[in-house]
Amino acid sequence: MHKKLFIPGPTEVRPEILKEMARPMIGHRMKEFSTLLMEVTAKVQKLLYTKNHLFMSTSSSTGMMEGAVRNCVGKRCLNCICGAFSQRWHEITLANGKEADPLEVEWGKANLPEAIDEKLKTGRYDAITVVHNESSTGVMNPLPEIAEVMKKYPDVIFMVDAVSSMTGVKIEVDKLGIDVILAGVQKCFALPPGLTVVAVSEKALKKAEQVKNRGYYFDFLTFKRYLDERQQTPATPSISHLYALNKQMDDIFAEGLENRFARHKRMADSVRRWARENFALFAQPGYESNTLTAIKNTKGISVAKLNEELGRRGAAISNGYGKLKEKTFRIAHMGDIQPADVDQLLAWIDEIVAAGVPA
Amino acid sequence: MHKKLFIPGPTEVRPEILKEMARPMIGHRMKEFSTLLMEVTAKVQKLLYTKNHLFMSTSSSTGMMEGAVRNCVGKRCLNCICGAFSQRWHEITLANGKEADPLEVEWGKANLPEAIDEKLKTGRYDAITVVHNESSTGVMNPLPEIAEVMKKYPDVIFMVDAVSSMTGVKIEVDKLGIDVILAGVQKCFALPPGLTVVAVSEKALKKAEQVKNRGYYFDFLTFKRYLDERQQTPATPSISHLYALNKQMDDIFAEGLENRFARHKRMADSVRRWARENFALFAQPGYESNTLTAIKNTKGISVAKLNEELGRRGAAISNGYGKLKEKTFRIAHMGDIQPADVDQLLAWIDEIVAAGVPA
Repeated sequence: MHKKLFIPGPTEVRPEILKEMARPMIGHRMKEFSTLLMEVTAKVQKLLYTKNHLFMSTSSSTGMMEGAVRNCVGKRCLNCICGAFSQRWHEITLANGKEADPLEVEWGKANLPEAIDEKLKTGRYDAITVVHNESSTGVMNPLPEIAEVMKKYPDVIFMVDAVSSMTGVKIEVDKLGIDVILAGVQKCFALPPGLTVVAVSEKALKKAEQVKNRGYYFDFLTFKRYLDERQQTPATPSISHLYALNKQMDDIFAEGLENRFARHKRMADSVRRWARENFALFAQPGYESNTLTAIKNTKGISVAKLNEELGRRGAAISNGYGKLKEKTFRIAHMGDIQPADVDQLLAWIDEIVAAGVPA
Repeated sequence: MHKKLFIPGPTEVRPEILKEMARPMIGHRMKEFSTLLMEVTAKVQKLLYTKNHLFMSTSSSTGMMEGAVRNCVGKRCLNCICGAFSQRWHEITLANGKEADPLEVEWGKANLPEAIDEKLKTGRYDAITVVHNESSTGVMNPLPEIAEVMKKYPDVIFMVDAVSSMTGVKIEVDKLGIDVILAGVQKCFALPPGLTVVAVSEKALKKAEQVKNRGYYFDFLTFKRYLDERQQTPATPSISHLYALNKQMDDIFAEGLENRFARHKRMADSVRRWARENFALFAQPGYESNTLTAIKNTKGISVAKLNEELGRRGAAISNGYGKLKEKTFRIAHMGDIQPADVDQLLAWIDEIVAAGVPA
């Protein structure tokens, strides 16, 4: 039986979108492809309220996180860390031979603008990484407030992982002055994994021109050259994903961006309300994510067993991430999941817990 | 109208395979996924006659070409060049801050074992890259003969791009002693683009342990750790492609490996025969590719116009690559294309040329 996915990626994909994944192939050096690429590029720019360059990377987000630091870290990077994925970005930065410092808060807490300001004041950094939504902890960092601080540091490249928030939460990239923002399509975009979108400012491109050893596959300047000169990607892209994304963007605009963001907020509110009544929230109050809720397992139930039971009913949630396994569990309410799906899921959990999940 | 693709990737994909691309999602940290991954991994190992480690990279081949040099070039790399894609591997090597020398032959000629031996004798190199099948020129380099030479240099990592030959030509990886061999699935595998398979020897892994700055996304050791410890990939993979590849491997074994290789040879023979009668072959005699034929445009027809006419009939071939545009044209006979498809294509070209393609 298929399990409806309430996990932080891949999320549930609608049959209409899956159908787009099955389109017959075209050549990626043909005119038909360029038309497709330019269409979908413009749509993602509109979603992000940006005129920045927009590239399509045939990779998971992790690949483009590597790309971002290879392109934009010259001197030293400040990696804001509040969970597993922001930690990973720090590791990626170091693995690429870059100088970098962590700015760490306890898991469950948010990266706050004051602490960032304090660090940047030292003048040691030319780039910063922030994970907008930490799906390991259910924390959504305060992007607008961080962006406000960033305006004091025009020489620092502002890089944001919006992997599990993009299309679920409003992100006005140009207004916020974000230089690099990226997201895999298997989260709020609700596509199968395999493609990552990245918006890159003129400032970030200028920076890349000065950074050595950027490599090839994730090189922003190579992406730009192919896009400008040929309306193509440098390497063979996942054409299936571009078809699916093109259709999904139309469906997102048909729902309406504001409606989509409001739907995510509504689902988050209802999961939080339920979690507060039955368990407790893991995230620092005021910084709870709108796309995913991490719940403290205050009842000491077996999350693995709960998930097995849910599986029998046709749904899957996520256990806590890494060290939080069994101590928390996570419900993703992102992408094309609807409020009624969430209600059904919560009713099932209630039913299973009431029947007594083995401890 | 859909155009049947006689281009060197993406190749024509059968509806049964496209259907696999449209399967509902599962989580990549779930048991179902590990089962899928381990199944398809074993099948590709069998195809390659290898016990080497086998990793699935959610990227085009270009990404894993970058990965190969980042993992395995410590001292200095020898890049064998005989066309655009082997040239690109050299550029990628340099773009990743590695020391490297080109070993270049004229486009249309093959990289020969003697010249490689001559270079390796100097003892300057700890890695070599060879493109098995140069799809820009229709040359297939003599892999067994090159492998023979490589046996004299056990300290040199032998890296092969088999992008446009894997599954179309027999490659016995362990027997040949190839340390790294990679291929995107959009060529002879006949899947949509978006996934690359790579087989990595124990020797290459040992080498990677000594090489600094391997990055993260294409790091062999990270792939190995996730595969060994969890039967997973480090980052979120393209699950759709893995489903499609799993099914396609079954279909390949159902056809029979030897039958599949023979079919490719048969199609190559018939295109070559036709080309010799009507035009001329571009590749050095004795090194013509079994998966793609590059044809000299001895009649001075407009290849672009020919392709337009073919488009009206429901087929597409490729113009010459880069500087060979209009001077050559290329017919790919790879993947799931059948001899009857090739016959039909050649008949159409005859018909169009006879009617007089505008010069």
